[in-house]
Amino acid sequence: MKAYREMSREELLTLQSQLNAEYEEAKAKGLSLNMSRGKPAVSQLDICKDFLDVVNSGSDLVTESGVDTRNYGELVGIPEAQQLMADMMGTKPENVIICGNASLTIMYDTVSRSMTHGVMGSTPWCKLDKVKFLCPAPGYDRHFAITEHFGIEMITIPMSPEGPDMDMVEKLVAEDDTIKGIWCVPKYSNPQGYTYSDETVRRFANLKPAAADFRIFWDNAYIIHDLYEDRSDKLLNILDECEKTGNVDMVYEFASTSKISFAGGGIAAIAASKGNLDAMKKSMTIQTIGYDKINQLRHVRYFKNLDGLKAHMIKHAALMRPKFEAVLEVLDRELNGAGIGTWTKPNGGYFISFDAMDGCAKAIVAKCKEAGVILTGAGATFPYGKDPKDSNIRIAPSFPTPEEMAMATDLFVLCVKLVSVEKLLEA
Amino acid sequence: MKAYREMSREELLTLQSQLNAEYEEAKAKGLSLNMSRGKPAVSQLDICKDFLDVVNSGSDLVTESGVDTRNYGELVGIPEAQQLMADMMGTKPENVIICGNASLTIMYDTVSRSMTHGVMGSTPWCKLDKVKFLCPAPGYDRHFAITEHFGIEMITIPMSPEGPDMDMVEKLVAEDDTIKGIWCVPKYSNPQGYTYSDETVRRFANLKPAAADFRIFWDNAYIIHDLYEDRSDKLLNILDECEKTGNVDMVYEFASTSKISFAGGGIAAIAASKGNLDAMKKSMTIQTIGYDKINQLRHVRYFKNLDGLKAHMIKHAALMRPKFEAVLEVLDRELNGAGIGTWTKPNGGYFISFDAMDGCAKAIVAKCKEAGVILTGAGATFPYGKDPKDSNIRIAPSFPTPEEMAMATDLFVLCVKLVSVEKLLEA
Repeated sequence: MKAYREMSREELLTLQSQLNAEYEEAKAKGLSLNMSRGKPAVSQLDICKDFLDVVNSGSDLVTESGVDTRNYGELVGIPEAQQLMADMMGTKPENVIICGNASLTIMYDTVSRSMTHGVMGSTPWCKLDKVKFLCPAPGYDRHFAITEHFGIEMITIPMSPEGPDMDMVEKLVAEDDTIKGIWCVPKYSNPQGYTYSDETVRRFANLKPAAADFRIFWDNAYIIHDLYEDRSDKLLNILDECEKTGNVDMVYEFASTSKISFAGGGIAAIAASKGNLDAMKKSMTIQTIGYDKINQLRHVRYFKNLDGLKAHMIKHAALMRPKFEAVLEVLDRELNGAGIGTWTKPNGGYFISFDAMDGCAKAIVAKCKEAGVILTGAGATFPYGKDPKDSNIRIAPSFPTPEEMAMATDLFVLCVKLVSVEKLLEA
Repeated sequence: MKAYREMSREELLTLQSQLNAEYEEAKAKGLSLNMSRGKPAVSQLDICKDFLDVVNSGSDLVTESGVDTRNYGELVGIPEAQQLMADMMGTKPENVIICGNASLTIMYDTVSRSMTHGVMGSTPWCKLDKVKFLCPAPGYDRHFAITEHFGIEMITIPMSPEGPDMDMVEKLVAEDDTIKGIWCVPKYSNPQGYTYSDETVRRFANLKPAAADFRIFWDNAYIIHDLYEDRSDKLLNILDECEKTGNVDMVYEFASTSKISFAGGGIAAIAASKGNLDAMKKSMTIQTIGYDKINQLRHVRYFKNLDGLKAHMIKHAALMRPKFEAVLEVLDRELNGAGIGTWTKPNGGYFISFDAMDGCAKAIVAKCKEAGVILTGAGATFPYGKDPKDSNIRIAPSFPTPEEMAMATDLFVLCVKLVSVEKLLEA
């Protein structure tokens, strides 16, 4: 395929009229497809259906450790659930607290608690003139929404396939004690699907923040969410690395089963140092008598252990792979060599990240919408919803079928071409 | 029985040595009983056992309203759960948001949100020099713990069988704009089991607070928790009353199924005006994608409607009544006429409140503990854990069996007598 930039004005005009005709045709089909949400498909939920049978009226609802899961108590979760999530996160059960159904809520509550009560005895952030967070971007919009909600200033950190720009991270956290945190999705990052390199993780563990209450928010959302059995990414364990560097208090790790069991009915966990968990418990014990232990028991009885979780994720991968491949096949076929976009090819997670020519993302998303294909809003992957280059688009292949994803991507590439041609003609 | 105060010193000394002998005997029994926790008994949980069967692998997990309860979404809860909790709370489903497993968490989050974001646009409380709450006492220790945790100054309001001292409440909220809230358990109050009179509720609805962001925290924890079918207390609906007075934004009502289905696995709700719920949703949508909808569906399918809930509570009452009666029988038999204590005889809820002679509560609780009977810590029912008269003791009859409750109360009255005699001899 000829690179668009090398086309003459005449060639571009011809192409444009051809693409316009194709677009009108596509619009006439009245598509209604959504590739905006990192949401499990019904088929993924279906493979977990007998999940609801493992705890029933015939079950012993008292745990091995002697806890009646129906009654009050067990602030940090039942020991068996702590063990399961600790195994998944590669840490010890005593480093883990099990909460409700969403790790997002633990992250929100952690920031909220830092605002009102500080971090392990530090000044409450709401009493400070300025609080800043580093935001590797493109990143997860709901992370940025939390910090924005609390009036925390966000600083964009560029991402590479190795992870965030660590030169910049190191320099900023060492210099500026108003920087109190950084958002990370270290494995199969949202939306690029990048996994932080060993060096990146080690540099995180070696950070020398000016602020004692600086914390790494390590959202390991896709920790066992591999697409391929033979080429899964490996992420170094940040808790272990921080143990080595003596920075044990510097990191909160989050994970959940939202994309393992049910997105609406999973369990979420935080793993952190004793100091951090003790500080958290001081508020938690005021906030709740304990989270839903029956659902914790359900997870333990159904998945049993890490092997059970992994075996289950192989079934998820079998459903997810064809969708990712459907997208990538169309992108490769239609855009390779055109020089009007680049995209990632992740080994896991929930997203593919597409970078259009600068200044084209919003127009592409709008064009797709006009023809019945919903994409994540352009800009959503950046702090304040503002992509400085207006270039990044997140593609979420999980919810539609592979056939729908192929159709949606067909329309997407058509819109990419059309908007790119328009952009080049403007120039 | 002769009143202790009318006894001569000699009579008291004789009684003391007799009571001491009884106490040593009781201690020798090596009791291990707990009447400190408002916790359902295993027998109560058992009557709800097939609760876990109504949602299983054969169930349609999509609601009538078309929501797949397994997946993300439905921030405010599934419509059927909103309807169920609205019926229980006597309001419309659109006035209700369903959250996680604990109303305590909604209350904590509501205070926390007010600290960081204010109330419907008011200045965040953390930016104010002083924030105060009114605390009718004796009251619920976990309420007071929330306000204490956030550094909110607590002002004790005396309780009567009609509810809080409304002269004082009206005066204080009208005069002092740093008073931002009041904690209420309006029906079968914790620990006295009092239900606010119609006049009290109307006076609440007519409050003229100096602070626009003053809110009534109406914790209707025992809303359908009657002990007797033929003499249940009736509480006027505060939301309706506030509608009449135009004070619709002044109240948050809380309820849950923690003491209906499972204490560890219920669902909790808040009912409030559109303005309050909209303000809440602004934070909620950042904090979560949605709470566990499968558990909401389970409640809807199991209880079906308000009649289903009420029928279930009749079974609870049958288990609870003998325990309350066991306590009251011993108190009546052993203390009537002695003039060393008064106690409440609630028609519902989870507690009996006992008032010892001034300065005796701590000593009674300690003496009970020494002989193997655990009571709620003296003072727990007052802000900062400090009962100015050292008089109030909360008795929680739910968890032990009726026989155990009788034994525990036997020891309790013995300790009351002993400590009272000691007190009178000191005088």
